[in-house]
Amino acid sequence: MDIKEELKEVFASLQKKRALVHHITNYVTVNDCANVVLAIGASPIMADEISEVEEMVGICDALVLNIGTANERTIASMLKAGSAANAKGIPVVLDPVGIGATAFRHTSVETLMKAITFSVIRGNMAEIKTIAGLEAKSAGVDSLEEERDGSTIALHLAQRLGCVIAITGKTDLVSDGKVCYALNNGDSALTNVTGTGCMSTSLIGSFLAASNNALTSAIAGILTMSIAGELAEKDKGMGTFHTSLIDRISQMNVQTLLAKSKISCIK
Amino acid sequence: MDIKEELKEVFASLQKKRALVHHITNYVTVNDCANVVLAIGASPIMADEISEVEEMVGICDALVLNIGTANERTIASMLKAGSAANAKGIPVVLDPVGIGATAFRHTSVETLMKAITFSVIRGNMAEIKTIAGLEAKSAGVDSLEEERDGSTIALHLAQRLGCVIAITGKTDLVSDGKVCYALNNGDSALTNVTGTGCMSTSLIGSFLAASNNALTSAIAGILTMSIAGELAEKDKGMGTFHTSLIDRISQMNVQTLLAKSKISCIK
Amino acid sequence: MDIKEELKEVFASLQKKRALVHHITNYVTVNDCANVVLAIGASPIMADEISEVEEMVGICDALVLNIGTANERTIASMLKAGSAANAKGIPVVLDPVGIGATAFRHTSVETLMKAITFSVIRGNMAEIKTIAGLEAKSAGVDSLEEERDGSTIALHLAQRLGCVIAITGKTDLVSDGKVCYALNNGDSALTNVTGTGCMSTSLIGSFLAASNNALTSAIAGILTMSIAGELAEKDKGMGTFHTSLIDRISQMNVQTLLAKSKISCIK
Repeated sequence: MDIKEELKEVFASLQKKRALVHHITNYVTVNDCANVVLAIGASPIMADEISEVEEMVGICDALVLNIGTANERTIASMLKAGSAANAKGIPVVLDPVGIGATAFRHTSVETLMKAITFSVIRGNMAEIKTIAGLEAKSAGVDSLEEERDGSTIALHLAQRLGCVIAITGKTDLVSDGKVCYALNNGDSALTNVTGTGCMSTSLIGSFLAASNNALTSAIAGILTMSIAGELAEKDKGMGTFHTSLIDRISQMNVQTLLAKSKISCIK
Repeated sequence: MDIKEELKEVFASLQKKRALVHHITNYVTVNDCANVVLAIGASPIMADEISEVEEMVGICDALVLNIGTANERTIASMLKAGSAANAKGIPVVLDPVGIGATAFRHTSVETLMKAITFSVIRGNMAEIKTIAGLEAKSAGVDSLEEERDGSTIALHLAQRLGCVIAITGKTDLVSDGKVCYALNNGDSALTNVTGTGCMSTSLIGSFLAASNNALTSAIAGILTMSIAGELAEKDKGMGTFHTSLIDRISQMNVQTLLAKSKISCIK
Repeated sequence: MDIKEELKEVFASLQKKRALVHHITNYVTVNDCANVVLAIGASPIMADEISEVEEMVGICDALVLNIGTANERTIASMLKAGSAANAKGIPVVLDPVGIGATAFRHTSVETLMKAITFSVIRGNMAEIKTIAGLEAKSAGVDSLEEERDGSTIALHLAQRLGCVIAITGKTDLVSDGKVCYALNNGDSALTNVTGTGCMSTSLIGSFLAASNNALTSAIAGILTMSIAGELAEKDKGMGTFHTSLIDRISQMNVQTLLAKSKISCIK
């Protein structure tokens, strides 16, 4: 099926079902994540107590794990929630925020990836390269060469992990291991508000919760954020831009998304 | 005294006193809760370290406990803070967020209710029904029948617990066990921004901190939020609506509140 | 060098370098803190897991410690991060939120001050007086007399601690122990939004990360917030004011700052 037809289906799924998206996420951007999930038509649940996460994820339609401000306690909760989600067939999305910065983040993501099958992993180029290195290393394979371009990294990593890889940046790259799409929407102002990456991941989780179509949900989530960024008010400053971003997400529909999207299948 | 006269008194109390409201609350909506407390004219203090909560609540005028993202550590802090508040005659408000979702939330609220006397419990219908069932069970009484209408639930539960019960929804129901008020304000957009329930609870805590009148504070807090929701800008999207909600709360006064309120004593 | 020339240099430093500012801070205002750091041209990193904070601070240009919602776990992380920052010559800023309220906050700040050399401590008058008392007591010196005016407190405390002291209020006082500046900008609306103190501290950390000039960074951070407060939209209410504050910070430049600043060297 054509990607534009699939985007229509993914949007339609979200309209039919008030999908619940369980988050174990960072406290910096959590309010914005909850609000974009509501804005696009799903419902957020944030809960990280280890004794309740299995039960909580069991009543949800997707799980988003974001390590932005993770600690030992919350990584343990993520492990438990992710495993429970896998057991029940609930899709899981990973946002490996700042994975390259510390050994704790490296090790935590390594542990999460060994225990949990992810449907989508979304990060910036540095984060995904670190994941690629990790995966290569932990699998005893030579590490990916730095010079390989993003689409090759996305494609190969997606193949090896059996999950959709989304690399966001000036051009966003999304691959399921078979094909790779390049998305050329967005605005540089998006880098001047905290959490636009986290919000993209939560939007991906929202579409995935309703449709269970990982590739198209990743594309839909990223396009929703980047097109909202194009449409949002920028002249008044970054406070108004932040507010306007949420406005545009709450008013997003598939017609606008398809009309504005600059998407091409590059592999 | 007439409820409208009481609302005037409760608002006047808040203008006379810069009341301090201690919160142990969730990290999703905490910034909004702090800002609505300031917007209505009280001062928020958020502190959850167990070794300081007794001392902190002792310098405050009310305590708000919200289990939205509670964990073992913060539930222990809530117990200690609530018991200290009771010992000192400082009113305590409970928001049992998502109590029906997990055993951890059930048990936590059960423990809190055994140890702490609340002045007001505010939740949606599902949450209050769960509380009613809990209470019934823990008191060895038959559980309330599902078909009983909300006002009966509110009235009976308020009687049994000796505290004000506020059920928010399309129609809000508030009872002290003797009478029950129905409030018919609000706007469906309020369900598309995260934390409007939490904010209502914090507003109730603010009025209560200044007046120590639980029934009227619950009504004042809920009406402030729902009338702000009616007056707030909705056309631009949910980001602007969220901002405008805080605007309207910061500009709320008892004249607007009384003029707009649709309140009736139904029992 | 003239303070206005120094302010120009501090602003220019921030434009040249995308400085990274590591925060261990409270969950109430953390999103606003991250957004003002971005708005002024630096990059925020929030991380509080004890096993990663040494490594994280090592890749950053400044560290901000804010005890607003600290607990035993995060105080331990602050100690470790602050010590590592000192060892590597990375400047550290302290915001002793509510230090006077509880023994836990007293003791925590006392412990932090014994272990860590701060470049700047920013608080309101009550907080800085408490620090002055603490320091006096822990150093075996008579406690400062309550009646001494703020500039004397700032000057003497800065001398004793060998760090810049910034007291924010109607008039802000900033001293490095040699001179004391009085800043007469700001707007009373700033007290009606949560976190304007925290945001000032994060702005100080941003300037300091780029310039390593503690006195001028403290002045620049405070002036940025107070002049943004003067320029921000106030008529629509506190939600719009909050948004507009971030707008004004993102549009702040040294020309506006110098033109609007009411700064005088009083000692």
